[in-house]
Amino acid sequence: MTSKTLRLLFPQWQGGNNPPYHLGSLLLSYLSPESDGPVESVPVDEPTSQPQAEVDGITAKPQIIRQLNDAATLIGKHDPDSIVVFGGDCLVSLAPFAHLLNKYGDKLGVLWIDSHPDVQTAKQYPNAHAHVLGALIGTGDKDLVAHVSTRLNPSKIMIAGIHDPLAYEAEYLASHSIATMSPEKVKNDAKDVTKWIKRENIEHLAIHIDLDVLDPSLFRSVLFAQPGRGEHDFGDVAEGKLSIEDVLNLIAQATSETVPVGLTIAEHLPWDMLNLKNMLSALPLMK
Amino acid sequence: MTSKTLRLLFPQWQGGNNPPYHLGSLLLSYLSPESDGPVESVPVDEPTSQPQAEVDGITAKPQIIRQLNDAATLIGKHDPDSIVVFGGDCLVSLAPFAHLLNKYGDKLGVLWIDSHPDVQTAKQYPNAHAHVLGALIGTGDKDLVAHVSTRLNPSKIMIAGIHDPLAYEAEYLASHSIATMSPEKVKNDAKDVTKWIKRENIEHLAIHIDLDVLDPSLFRSVLFAQPGRGEHDFGDVAEGKLSIEDVLNLIAQATSETVPVGLTIAEHLPWDMLNLKNMLSALPLMK
Repeated sequence: MTSKTLRLLFPQWQGGNNPPYHLGSLLLSYLSPESDGPVESVPVDEPTSQPQAEVDGITAKPQIIRQLNDAATLIGKHDPDSIVVFGGDCLVSLAPFAHLLNKYGDKLGVLWIDSHPDVQTAKQYPNAHAHVLGALIGTGDKDLVAHVSTRLNPSKIMIAGIHDPLAYEAEYLASHSIATMSPEKVKNDAKDVTKWIKRENIEHLAIHIDLDVLDPSLFRSVLFAQPGRGEHDFGDVAEGKLSIEDVLNLIAQATSETVPVGLTIAEHLPWDMLNLKNMLSALPLMK
Repeated sequence: MTSKTLRLLFPQWQGGNNPPYHLGSLLLSYLSPESDGPVESVPVDEPTSQPQAEVDGITAKPQIIRQLNDAATLIGKHDPDSIVVFGGDCLVSLAPFAHLLNKYGDKLGVLWIDSHPDVQTAKQYPNAHAHVLGALIGTGDKDLVAHVSTRLNPSKIMIAGIHDPLAYEAEYLASHSIATMSPEKVKNDAKDVTKWIKRENIEHLAIHIDLDVLDPSLFRSVLFAQPGRGEHDFGDVAEGKLSIEDVLNLIAQATSETVPVGLTIAEHLPWDMLNLKNMLSALPLMK
């Protein structure tokens, strides 16, 4: 029996309100090994520098909900056993992980590799890329939560690489008893992830990688490595501390005990490639 | 009359002895506006981590000479009025600029935008990407120089963005009376390039951009921004000080007085994209 992996190209940028996520998604696709399974692309408007309106406190909510519907339709068309998603901002995981929850229920664990827990709501922050894990649990905007038929039990979540959560986030994590691993724990003793898998009887694993979990001095295609940024430009939220090797080791450890069924790579902001693309367009002899 | 611009993809990495130049070239092509002119690709072996042998004091000389021959043949096939080159290391300009010298002779000026003058020989340094402008003038390895039928008169060269040349380079620039513009001059008063164009009666312009002329803290896909580098890893040679805007302004100034006929973009080392590509290949569900 061969399983069917759907590859979903999802260049959503409105959830993070940052146009370069669009090119980030295209480049993930360009750099990846070829797939012999089905590939679908969620239609997303080309980036614009026009300000995005807030609806119900959420930036560009109408576009986001339309993209969510389209993603769910494309996934439904294939009914895949497993899904790979090339974001786009972190919100791209909502429809795919909702599908995997329907399919695997309580046997599904979610390994969320991220500096941030993404459990905020419109009350705390307008950009929905920070709402996505909360929506999978069932908290936050009703139109996001409506896409999650099978809610994610918080005990089935491990957030790895997280540090220095905001007060709201820390309270949410504590009140929902969500397991976390600090960057130091990931680096030195990734066995916590194995204990969590055994304790929760997890058989299938959905992995979400927010690239901003990586140290921005070593991997510069992330928010916190924006060229020319000021020290306090990002509200002093946590910045990544892991290396690519740390992330791969953690995933190897986790998938030695489970069947991987979901993989999202999100928040790729390839500043150099965007600046180079614009430079190339402005040079003589290029058209 | 429409002029014919050949676009040459030249992923040479042996001239800089650094495998990531190969992906750098492919990405330049990926990021560029589409061309409606002819496109050719110089065959280059896939990068390998095997050490490259020196012949006549030059790293990987046999491969370099073969690629040079192939580039010249492809250019000869089209006999283009103008050429765009996606390097690869700086040596990729040798065959295209030799062609333009044959075509435009003393009416051709070379605007070499680079932190370094690239006038060394095998006696000073084994990697031929630092020999290319010297070879166009007629100095250095006989098999490189043999590719230049019409020598480049040093008075037809302007090196922009250069600073802190090595002793050998400084002596060479002085003895050949080669015009230079410091990074500060490029930023504050690019009119020197106009004076040079008028003084030398330059009508056609070949532009070579070594991306390492850019400030590595703002554009990180260059040698000097290698992740995890030590302060003295690159022998304390000059590092870039310009912004992309500085480079575009200089080129706009220069091409307001001349017809651009050559454009090379070289020394693109997309560290993040290479690391991401390797990461993607190592992740589950990706094949």
